[in-house]
Amino acid sequence: MVKRLLDERRFLELKDHLKEMNSPDIANMLEEMDKEDLLIVFRLLEKDRAADVFSYMEVERQQYLVENIREGEVENVINSLFLDDVVDFLEEMPANVVKRVLKLTPTERRSNINKLLKYPEDSAGSLMTVEFMALKKSMTVREALDVIRSVGRESVSINTCFITDRTKKLEGVLSLKDIVLAKEDEVVEELMERFPVTVKTVDDQEDVIKAFKKYDLDLVAVVDVEEKMVGVITVDDVIDALEEENTEDIQKMNAVEPMETEYKKTGIFSLAKHRIVWLFVLMISATLTGRVIGRYEEVLENAVILAAFIPMLMDTGGNAGSQASSLIIRGLALGEIEKKDLPGIIFKEMRVGVLVGLGLATANFLRLAFFEKIDPMVAMVVCSTLVFTVTTAKTIGGTLPIIAKTLKLDPAIMAAPLITTIVDTISLLIYFYFATTFLKLV
Amino acid sequence: MVKRLLDERRFLELKDHLKEMNSPDIANMLEEMDKEDLLIVFRLLEKDRAADVFSYMEVERQQYLVENIREGEVENVINSLFLDDVVDFLEEMPANVVKRVLKLTPTERRSNINKLLKYPEDSAGSLMTVEFMALKKSMTVREALDVIRSVGRESVSINTCFITDRTKKLEGVLSLKDIVLAKEDEVVEELMERFPVTVKTVDDQEDVIKAFKKYDLDLVAVVDVEEKMVGVITVDDVIDALEEENTEDIQKMNAVEPMETEYKKTGIFSLAKHRIVWLFVLMISATLTGRVIGRYEEVLENAVILAAFIPMLMDTGGNAGSQASSLIIRGLALGEIEKKDLPGIIFKEMRVGVLVGLGLATANFLRLAFFEKIDPMVAMVVCSTLVFTVTTAKTIGGTLPIIAKTLKLDPAIMAAPLITTIVDTISLLIYFYFATTFLKLV
Repeated sequence: MVKRLLDERRFLELKDHLKEMNSPDIANMLEEMDKEDLLIVFRLLEKDRAADVFSYMEVERQQYLVENIREGEVENVINSLFLDDVVDFLEEMPANVVKRVLKLTPTERRSNINKLLKYPEDSAGSLMTVEFMALKKSMTVREALDVIRSVGRESVSINTCFITDRTKKLEGVLSLKDIVLAKEDEVVEELMERFPVTVKTVDDQEDVIKAFKKYDLDLVAVVDVEEKMVGVITVDDVIDALEEENTEDIQKMNAVEPMETEYKKTGIFSLAKHRIVWLFVLMISATLTGRVIGRYEEVLENAVILAAFIPMLMDTGGNAGSQASSLIIRGLALGEIEKKDLPGIIFKEMRVGVLVGLGLATANFLRLAFFEKIDPMVAMVVCSTLVFTVTTAKTIGGTLPIIAKTLKLDPAIMAAPLITTIVDTISLLIYFYFATTFLKLV
Repeated sequence: MVKRLLDERRFLELKDHLKEMNSPDIANMLEEMDKEDLLIVFRLLEKDRAADVFSYMEVERQQYLVENIREGEVENVINSLFLDDVVDFLEEMPANVVKRVLKLTPTERRSNINKLLKYPEDSAGSLMTVEFMALKKSMTVREALDVIRSVGRESVSINTCFITDRTKKLEGVLSLKDIVLAKEDEVVEELMERFPVTVKTVDDQEDVIKAFKKYDLDLVAVVDVEEKMVGVITVDDVIDALEEENTEDIQKMNAVEPMETEYKKTGIFSLAKHRIVWLFVLMISATLTGRVIGRYEEVLENAVILAAFIPMLMDTGGNAGSQASSLIIRGLALGEIEKKDLPGIIFKEMRVGVLVGLGLATANFLRLAFFEKIDPMVAMVVCSTLVFTVTTAKTIGGTLPIIAKTLKLDPAIMAAPLITTIVDTISLLIYFYFATTFLKLV
């Protein structure tokens, strides 16, 4: 439709059509257009809309636009954006674009941008924007509404208003809903909620996420070290941060160093770099398991059949361990499990391990002894090892993430890959111990 | 503080103190109290507050309350809750509690509850609540505000208002912000946004999450098959659903069947049940790998040293594969990767695999040949296997999740455990092929 109007150069109709579309949808559409059309369509957008659409676009296209539209247009887009979106954009731009953009920005706004750019990545400060709706507690509802009507357009959200004193200390919050539902002569101080939830600029984004989940917020106040209110974080940015944290956890749990960029936009050298270090570490660790086999070479020479069960024992141990560790890692991330739960978890995983191990061993014994006609003593050794391996794997898998947390390491690294490597060695030690004891091979 | 006021039976002061606390914090506190104190404190809460606190409490405590407070109190709490919270609560209750609660509920409300209870789990219908703010397009802003003031208290949120026609078809949305900022004689129809984002009652919660992420919503309209508006979903429920989806993915990626309950609240039999099936399947699959070793028993007998490298090759192959599969699974979940990307991904993973494989093999060859003084031909066999294993593992790991998606299976099952088992067999086949070819053992 848009394509047709564009090809037939029916720009006025196209302009009307664009008015009825959502900004995210327009942004999506623009990403798939060729660059000339992109410029035409972008220029047909209304002033405010153009900035909104810009904020939803991907960084390469944003850069293309800024480098190819007139200075006045850049100025309009950049100065209509909320500050957090400007900062997100500038963080990805080369120095010359940053310079050009900052030159077009009024002084006060520029100094705010510079402040936001300085907050560490993944901090509350880096997520926040400064355009919030501030009220005074002495105002009546009528006065509050007057203020909201005069400056509300410039706030990222007015659904929650913040009551600050002369020194900018936060004294309370009041929802727009409560303002609208109140009588005109009621006073803000009596309506507002005291002791609002706040986060600090230096807090990690994980703490911000926790606050949103616990208090069902749609906007949170950010205060600095002096408890002065400096900004707000909106729920849509929190959802993005949440997905980022989850992606990071999944990457770490699979021995990939966290990557900032999307898979499709990451080059092969970068992809390789983020994988090889952990693979190397784990490869070297796995040679330890090889040593165990090396030590029992004679046993193997006398009963090569034992080698055939090594993959099954290693894999089952690794899987049993990573089941446990992944549940604990996730529980820690969601705050459902705490460090003090360690003894309970060890006891629980041991019992689960024994249950699961016995189940698997019984099934396997029947299969080996009756269907595969393996020497029952060998089957016995394999299946006893299974019980001990699974139990040990679950106990270790349940324990290590909590120990990592205690040592202030990220529990997510104690996942499948590392657990597998550790459990491998232990299962082979158990295996050969049982083999030498019961089969009297040496 | 609360404990002290309670012990000293200073109930009036306690009541005042509670007024200054957040509902989630009170709920948290109540969960840690003994049951008698719980009843006392709960009764000190104001009417509306009691329902709000109730909605934040855990299910066991909710049940205890409903079974131990007077009928009139139950009635008050249940009828002050938003319907989605009532439904969430009833879904967890035994039949006698459900019966008791429904008996205390007015007819119309009861029929709404019954409707909501019927939506399939994880559908948009099961997430929604029915108390939304409906306006008519012919209203002026003044009239709209009058309606909002008279019934707004009963809506779960009035930050977004929904404009419906006589048949309840959704015609547009209008934010409270825009209403407040408009002039009193403007008409809703001119202010409202047409073609609002909607989800269908039968949509999966994943689609709801996608809509929130794409359009930065704080409230979405839910329509039935006839496009009539039946409810709304709030962003806090979407965040919970998002975390649930992520937990489920992580569980599946680690061969745990998804569990509804928190780890600490799950008994050992249930924990064992959710793990043993996959472990069993993978154990049986791993015997295939054992077969490969069995087939090459003679080779191993002639060169037992080869056995010592099996764990390292298996682990590295498994890890390399699960790195790739986890990135693809996550990319699919976030919508960054689509089915049509398969050829590109295969090509990319092959190249990454060769890069990473060559890197690891070179390091390993130097270590084996010079530090461990292993026969260079053996080291050669091990390291060539490494290159091929890593490349194959990455290609398979990148491919299988997309194939799963094409077959309408959950890509998350194509993660570390299954990939490891598949890659194990392949790496051993490559290993023994190289060994027999280059070492001339048989």
